Amino acid sequence: MNKYLQTDPWCIIEEGFHPNKQLVSESIFSLGNGHIGQRANFEEYYSGETMLGSYIAGIYFPERAERGNWKNGYSDANDKIVNAPNWTGISVRLNDDRLDLAEWDVQNFRRVLNMREGFLERTFEAISSKGHRIQVSVKRFLSMAETEIGAISYSVKSLNYEGRISFLPLIDGDVKNKHTNYNEQFWNMLQTKTQQDVSHIWVQTRRMDFHVCGALTYVLYKNNEQLKVNPTKIEKEKVAGFSVGTDVRIGDTVCLNKYVAIISSLNHPREELTERACNLALAAKEKGWNQLFEEHSAVWAEKWLQSDIIIDSDLEAQQAIRFSIFQLNQTYNGDDSRLNISPKGFTGEKYAGATRWDTEATCIPFYLCTSPQNVAKNLLLYRFRHLPKAIQNAQKFGFINGAALFPIATFNGVESYNEWETTFEEVHRNGIIAFAISNYIRYTGDENYLAEAGLKVLIGISRFWAQRVNLSYEKKKFVILGVTGPNTYENNVNNNWFTNYIAVWTLQYTIECVEKVKQSNFRAFEDLSQDINFANDEIFLWKDIIENMYLPENKKLGIILQQDGFLDKTLTNAAEIPETQRPINQHWTWDRILRSSFIKQADVVQGLYFFEENFDKDTIRKNFEFYEPLTVHESSLSPCIHSIVASAVGNKQKAYELYLRTARLDLDDYNNDVADGLHITSMAGTWLTIVQGFGGMRVKDGKLHFNPQIPEKWNAFAFNILFRGNQLNIRVEKQKVILHNIKGEGIDLYVNAKIIHIKAESQVEFVI
Amino acid sequence: MNKYLQTDPWCIIEEGFHPNKQLVSESIFSLGNGHIGQRANFEEYYSGETMLGSYIAGIYFPERAERGNWKNGYSDANDKIVNAPNWTGISVRLNDDRLDLAEWDVQNFRRVLNMREGFLERTFEAISSKGHRIQVSVKRFLSMAETEIGAISYSVKSLNYEGRISFLPLIDGDVKNKHTNYNEQFWNMLQTKTQQDVSHIWVQTRRMDFHVCGALTYVLYKNNEQLKVNPTKIEKEKVAGFSVGTDVRIGDTVCLNKYVAIISSLNHPREELTERACNLALAAKEKGWNQLFEEHSAVWAEKWLQSDIIIDSDLEAQQAIRFSIFQLNQTYNGDDSRLNISPKGFTGEKYAGATRWDTEATCIPFYLCTSPQNVAKNLLLYRFRHLPKAIQNAQKFGFINGAALFPIATFNGVESYNEWETTFEEVHRNGIIAFAISNYIRYTGDENYLAEAGLKVLIGISRFWAQRVNLSYEKKKFVILGVTGPNTYENNVNNNWFTNYIAVWTLQYTIECVEKVKQSNFRAFEDLSQDINFANDEIFLWKDIIENMYLPENKKLGIILQQDGFLDKTLTNAAEIPETQRPINQHWTWDRILRSSFIKQADVVQGLYFFEENFDKDTIRKNFEFYEPLTVHESSLSPCIHSIVASAVGNKQKAYELYLRTARLDLDDYNNDVADGLHITSMAGTWLTIVQGFGGMRVKDGKLHFNPQIPEKWNAFAFNILFRGNQLNIRVEKQKVILHNIKGEGIDLYVNAKIIHIKAESQVEFVI
Repeated sequence: MNKYLQTDPWCIIEEGFHPNKQLVSESIFSLGNGHIGQRANFEEYYSGETMLGSYIAGIYFPERAERGNWKNGYSDANDKIVNAPNWTGISVRLNDDRLDLAEWDVQNFRRVLNMREGFLERTFEAISSKGHRIQVSVKRFLSMAETEIGAISYSVKSLNYEGRISFLPLIDGDVKNKHTNYNEQFWNMLQTKTQQDVSHIWVQTRRMDFHVCGALTYVLYKNNEQLKVNPTKIEKEKVAGFSVGTDVRIGDTVCLNKYVAIISSLNHPREELTERACNLALAAKEKGWNQLFEEHSAVWAEKWLQSDIIIDSDLEAQQAIRFSIFQLNQTYNGDDSRLNISPKGFTGEKYAGATRWDTEATCIPFYLCTSPQNVAKNLLLYRFRHLPKAIQNAQKFGFINGAALFPIATFNGVESYNEWETTFEEVHRNGIIAFAISNYIRYTGDENYLAEAGLKVLIGISRFWAQRVNLSYEKKKFVILGVTGPNTYENNVNNNWFTNYIAVWTLQYTIECVEKVKQSNFRAFEDLSQDINFANDEIFLWKDIIENMYLPENKKLGIILQQDGFLDKTLTNAAEIPETQRPINQHWTWDRILRSSFIKQADVVQGLYFFEENFDKDTIRKNFEFYEPLTVHESSLSPCIHSIVASAVGNKQKAYELYLRTARLDLDDYNNDVADGLHITSMAGTWLTIVQGFGGMRVKDGKLHFNPQIPEKWNAFAFNILFRGNQLNIRVEKQKVILHNIKGEGIDLYVNAKIIHIKAESQVEFVI
Repeated sequence: MNKYLQTDPWCIIEEGFHPNKQLVSESIFSLGNGHIGQRANFEEYYSGETMLGSYIAGIYFPERAERGNWKNGYSDANDKIVNAPNWTGISVRLNDDRLDLAEWDVQNFRRVLNMREGFLERTFEAISSKGHRIQVSVKRFLSMAETEIGAISYSVKSLNYEGRISFLPLIDGDVKNKHTNYNEQFWNMLQTKTQQDVSHIWVQTRRMDFHVCGALTYVLYKNNEQLKVNPTKIEKEKVAGFSVGTDVRIGDTVCLNKYVAIISSLNHPREELTERACNLALAAKEKGWNQLFEEHSAVWAEKWLQSDIIIDSDLEAQQAIRFSIFQLNQTYNGDDSRLNISPKGFTGEKYAGATRWDTEATCIPFYLCTSPQNVAKNLLLYRFRHLPKAIQNAQKFGFINGAALFPIATFNGVESYNEWETTFEEVHRNGIIAFAISNYIRYTGDENYLAEAGLKVLIGISRFWAQRVNLSYEKKKFVILGVTGPNTYENNVNNNWFTNYIAVWTLQYTIECVEKVKQSNFRAFEDLSQDINFANDEIFLWKDIIENMYLPENKKLGIILQQDGFLDKTLTNAAEIPETQRPINQHWTWDRILRSSFIKQADVVQGLYFFEENFDKDTIRKNFEFYEPLTVHESSLSPCIHSIVASAVGNKQKAYELYLRTARLDLDDYNNDVADGLHITSMAGTWLTIVQGFGGMRVKDGKLHFNPQIPEKWNAFAFNILFRGNQLNIRVEKQKVILHNIKGEGIDLYVNAKIIHIKAESQVEFVI
């Protein structure tokens, strides 16, 4: 626990400057708008510890692959997110005295991330070694309305200084990745140019030929009056911008508003990039700060209406859940199916910024409930677009006939991660990608998606499973050998139950979907069958596998077995691991972790969470009680799932205890790793813990169900969800639930298995 | 198969120049004397493809470790053999016409490795673009008698040239490793100096502080008469030597004899290195070529007396087995317990030149039978010297109380290889190191070795096994989880039979040895117990493990199981793999290999080979017949073991077929990898195939046993062995065995279980 921030319902607040926490703050106070992400680096020069981070969604670089112990099938390039030109820089000088918070005395420092309106504000006083004293106020946002625009308002008031104050608003292409490649440079400079009003740099990734152009313009004010200035143009090899200034007297305030456009060849023709960027920056200036900000904060207002959670009487929990919702909405806005959500979002470079199965496991349920339908759908289409590459990928592994294996980590559908036990063996990702399709259809009812895209993906994955199983010589059952399951503290195991189960489930669900499409849209089915050479015969084998798949269990203990041989371990509870040896992945050698009984993250429990309808509550409880004590939750995706299942089996205390492990993971830097970036995808898990866990929300047969329970510490909690045209607010109090149908038609839903009708724009109370 | 060399009983011969095979030839024609190794690089300048390789035993460099997917417990440095200054260079000029076989016309090229006397000879005619024609003859050797001395005689006869011929005998420190580290340089130059008669370079490894000095001197002859010349001294930053020459007429022969000393700080004080090297080189010159060579070839004569094998009527087999014996004796001579045998010896840089368990599995039996006792003993002492580091290594893995885990690859006892499934999980190496001790004592009868060193190693290893097992929750037996067995086409398996069995065997053998030392030398036992804090209580647990270890088997099939779950595989014979997909490790992804039934190398069969006395022949046969068809033998250490077991179960045809896969592996470059170096350790396996396989040699209760059988293609074969003071020659013919007691007392031995007495220096025939 590393708590240094203030608690507040809508804001994250750092009171007083914590230079030793600067890397952590840079992560936590990050801004983003789904297209651009920016760590909370200072605008002005800073000689202290910092990790610059400006990222553009969809722009990546094929890193030199590690060739240590090379295996056939490894990808040639490990794609990684690339640090883009830094658009935030505004150097500040009092004559030749350059502002630098690492060198100047800093007083009354306050940094605020305003989550309601989506901006970052910083105020402080600073005194230089020469005794110059200024009061500074900086505000910035990345527009959610115009996602190629960022704006910064940098205001300096002289407290004792008389003389010239200059600003250097810059855009800087001399950037490197932190987790870098032997100091490799990722960008070619194509142009840096500064005209009278606008300055830009145009760069190109050294491989992949992504082009990016950043353009900036500005307005300078003195005591709220706009100044006409004659700027010095800056046009260096890798940096472009201006130097502008004015003379001040004590008490004067000078303010520079910087308007930046960042655009890329993802969305614009390369040859028009510079012109468009400059025009966009100038148009933003023309529009002006206030209107830009109003449009931006209006988007946030709508987001909060759709997704806010209120926790009554627990301010820390309130702040934390809003932080999660805020960061998720900053990371992905669902308007582009080429984009996705990396575990760290745009807040750092760990996990290379690539997409993993976190998206399907936790993020899709979040966006399904809190955003218009197209948002989750675009996440599904992301995988659909990658289907041809997933088929190519499976071919590398020896699979044929359109079998698809999606990569463990990717930007463009090509595998970007090389570690055999992960890349080759964590094949359950394929099942989770299939499960997300069912999740989407279950929630939205949008069965058209199957014919449109989903069924092709399901068939590709089913074909993979049908070839990935083999008939056991000894068991005379189908088995799946040599996998790494969701619990990655096991490698290369046989018959991981989760994997075997989700394989069978995929086959079953695909057969159902084949029937559905056949019946609802025979023409589409015929076309699809011809397109991917699908024949009904395939289903015979699938049915054989469904009926004869081996699923490990121990009848005596009444539990599912995580994998073959699990009970050969010495069963030790995680509670017995000495504090000094935690987390075990930082203290133990890998072989010791592998042969221990300690489970990194939900595995059997993950399966019971996904497929709870197929198991009776007693089975779920027994397995939860068996596996939870063995689980060390050294993945941030784990406690949330365990918490939801604990709620489902009525273990309220455990549910809350596990919720606490996920709720403030980043704000309190539990694992000492926030400097590397935030755990964006596990934030969706936190949201699920409240809505599916405490709220007990499920969808069955097209209807919403709630089985709410409230943690003892809380007086009430409420969450907003979107469901098939209805905007709902569910408020859970100690004794009752208040269901508010904010927008949409009347709706039938279930609370504790009792059906309730809520008329349009009205609310119903239900005693619990 | 890439046959381009001539067949000959005592020589390896390349007729005609094969520049496209130069890398292969450089490996095959390598010279070594156990202390220095040298690939067959040309002396003169060569602009064609070449891989320079001069290696000094015991000198290594900590390479930058690959940090790809880092695991706790990985070694900081991957030690690797380092390419040492090249001592062979003799540049040859006809005025300004520099001899270069890549540029000149080459005729009548012939390269011969004379194995009987241990030298490399090369003769050819070469014509320059100017039409200058010369006849060249070069001979070189690395003295087996004075292991710091190398000598080269370089002779040039003018066929049509009149003018000056110059030689530049050099020693060159500007060398790099081929499998290198981002062009890292390994050597600091401390001094290059050329005096009147002798020239030297003195270098230091950039880490580890190994010092090496190479000194050279020379004599120049014209038409067999020594010339007095006034050399030009060469003394560059990294190169030292001379330029000498003389005028010739057509028919004249000029010859330069180069005498080199290579010494290192392993054996000499750093401050005396240059003086000693120069004196050694001068002393060699003083001694003269003929005497140096006589002393050298006398050592070879003795080696051949001890270790030769004759194969009658199969010239290819004859050549190949001598090549194996020759290379093994070039690689290790057993006079220094700090040295060992790397899989590639001194013929390349693959496997980094580090010691692996190949030494214990195949090399020790070879040296035991063909060299004085101290040679194998020094290989054991190598591990004994590393015991403290093996204990530290085990501590990294969480083991306590003096448990020892020897590294998978090492120079100095520290792990030098980082791959978790190998480094952390191939723990059977520990058992094989214990087994080698028993092998040594069984063969030599030298039980004193236990108190001297062996018992400490055995106890360290037994302590490891006692902690590495765990009691299975389900089986109520001891199990060993998460290992990679000898068959490395499986990773992280549970209960690899070989590992479980050798663990039990180690414990049992250690208990026996504790008793032996206690009885034979109680004082030593007391001292040792105190020294390593050994208490008799430990044995109680060991006995419990011995009695209650789980050993996987399938009673229905009557076979031992390679590991838990082996029979979940689809059992497919290796014969069914299409040729285009072989070797599978070059065509299949790792996951596919892992879940296949294909076995890389002897695993259960390796165990049955080691412990055949504990199994009836029917069990061995059944298991051999089960596993052999599944085995792809993609390790060079595999077919030899299968061949021996095939002989033991009377499957003569299979035994010979498998022998053929190992016999000419390098000479015919079966796997297209000889350019990287020779398979030195598997050469010992080839030797075993003949002596233990066809010869059926075993030692039981201190007596030699033979169960000879002869491949159909052969008329006879004969091998020499040393056994407890006797020098024996065993000749196996179609109908009889002739046993010759060449040196030593009378001896009792068994042929086909019948006892035979052979008087001193006499022979006995035995009809079979």
